[in-house]
Amino acid sequence: MSHPRTLIGVTTWVIADGYIPPTSTGRQPAMTSHDSVCMLNAGDTDAEIELHIYLTDAEPLGPYRLRIGARRAFHQRFNDLSDPEPVPVDTDYCCVIRSSVPIVVQHTRLDSRQAANALMTTIAHPVPDQ
Amino acid sequence: MSHPRTLIGVTTWVIADGYIPPTSTGRQPAMTSHDSVCMLNAGDTDAEIELHIYLTDAEPLGPYRLRIGARRAFHQRFNDLSDPEPVPVDTDYCCVIRSSVPIVVQHTRLDSRQAANALMTTIAHPVPDQ
Amino acid sequence: MSHPRTLIGVTTWVIADGYIPPTSTGRQPAMTSHDSVCMLNAGDTDAEIELHIYLTDAEPLGPYRLRIGARRAFHQRFNDLSDPEPVPVDTDYCCVIRSSVPIVVQHTRLDSRQAANALMTTIAHPVPDQ
Amino acid sequence: MSHPRTLIGVTTWVIADGYIPPTSTGRQPAMTSHDSVCMLNAGDTDAEIELHIYLTDAEPLGPYRLRIGARRAFHQRFNDLSDPEPVPVDTDYCCVIRSSVPIVVQHTRLDSRQAANALMTTIAHPVPDQ
Repeated sequence: MSHPRTLIGVTTWVIADGYIPPTSTGRQPAMTSHDSVCMLNAGDTDAEIELHIYLTDAEPLGPYRLRIGARRAFHQRFNDLSDPEPVPVDTDYCCVIRSSVPIVVQHTRLDSRQAANALMTTIAHPVPDQ
Repeated sequence: MSHPRTLIGVTTWVIADGYIPPTSTGRQPAMTSHDSVCMLNAGDTDAEIELHIYLTDAEPLGPYRLRIGARRAFHQRFNDLSDPEPVPVDTDYCCVIRSSVPIVVQHTRLDSRQAANALMTTIAHPVPDQ
Repeated sequence: MSHPRTLIGVTTWVIADGYIPPTSTGRQPAMTSHDSVCMLNAGDTDAEIELHIYLTDAEPLGPYRLRIGARRAFHQRFNDLSDPEPVPVDTDYCCVIRSSVPIVVQHTRLDSRQAANALMTTIAHPVPDQ
Repeated sequence: MSHPRTLIGVTTWVIADGYIPPTSTGRQPAMTSHDSVCMLNAGDTDAEIELHIYLTDAEPLGPYRLRIGARRAFHQRFNDLSDPEPVPVDTDYCCVIRSSVPIVVQHTRLDSRQAANALMTTIAHPVPDQ
């Protein structure tokens, strides 16, 4: 059986607890504190992705544009986004992810501010397509 | 492309594992043990939020009222709520979040009772709007 | 505004990664390694709960019966269940939670086998009511 | 009341943040860093499972085939898959899980690269059956 041909996922996803811890302990860059958006494009068409970053007291940042090839995984650290501007560190945010084709999104943070790293993850909130 | 104009989320969400750890290790307030409700109001209308706290052996507390501006993130530590009364520490609780407009909610705890902090997160349970 | 009167949740939920770590570090019982099912009965009727524990190579255990009062939170450590029999420690399991009325379920583990505790949580999988 | 007879779950699930940490601290194999797919087959028919692993810059791996008996839990470490080939360590991936009958899937990682283990978990993303 080949890989699944049905469309998997939806085109809009939400992360509500975005936060990049400002400090790190341990070997870099593996143990650098980071906040990540992990995406699967299981379809046979490339995905054009746009991220918007929502803040507590300013208008949203973005769009941040990414492309994910057909049948590809893509894990993006928010720390590493720079265009149109870096995502602010040590700052509460939320993120809306929109894709040109259905994808699946999971949100993960590694926090190594203290001597042993902490991890958290959740499947992001899928917004039903119309 | 500007930020998404469609309504994102639902108006009622549930957190079932609420708990504020009673002690902390490390730099305050960043590493203070806390339980948080993280919310996105991606719409163009302010959100009026009400939280109710459910306990094991007493009637629910609340409402706790919050306002989230249009196109804004809002991360609230349960530790910091005080009106109508503080959320009890070291006590099991659940929380129902209701909003005047669709939002998305994620629940996160940082537990620094021991020498290195632990983290956990989950998108809260969305209650379908009628 | 009083607490929500609408029915919140569904009557059947699933936890797929059940596991009680066999050892603990730190102050007991707060830091005892445990696996918990956290439930909200937001309605105005008591909930009669039945848990079944599924194992890798034996028939399911249970039912384990619990009652949650109207408008009450209830956090149950699997470690503390004893009737009809204890949930085996250091053993992979899954759990199906069924309730007489809609509830919301979250699954949380605290693992203190090593020197600092780890945490993980997720809203359980809601099975749509017919 | 016997165990639930209704079909529980769906036949396709997605994990978007797959990653096997390359190093470990502590007693083996319990504290070996691992990434796991935890599944429940609550039905009365055996489940034939196929996993596909999606990578960042190569075609998907698989299928990896597993069988889960009726009324059984099954927790599989990705580390331990070897047929048709091992899942690469220290490499971002996503996973699509397909089953011949409805199941429920939860994704968990234990990361013991640093001195105390970290944990993260989430119910995987359920793809609605047609």
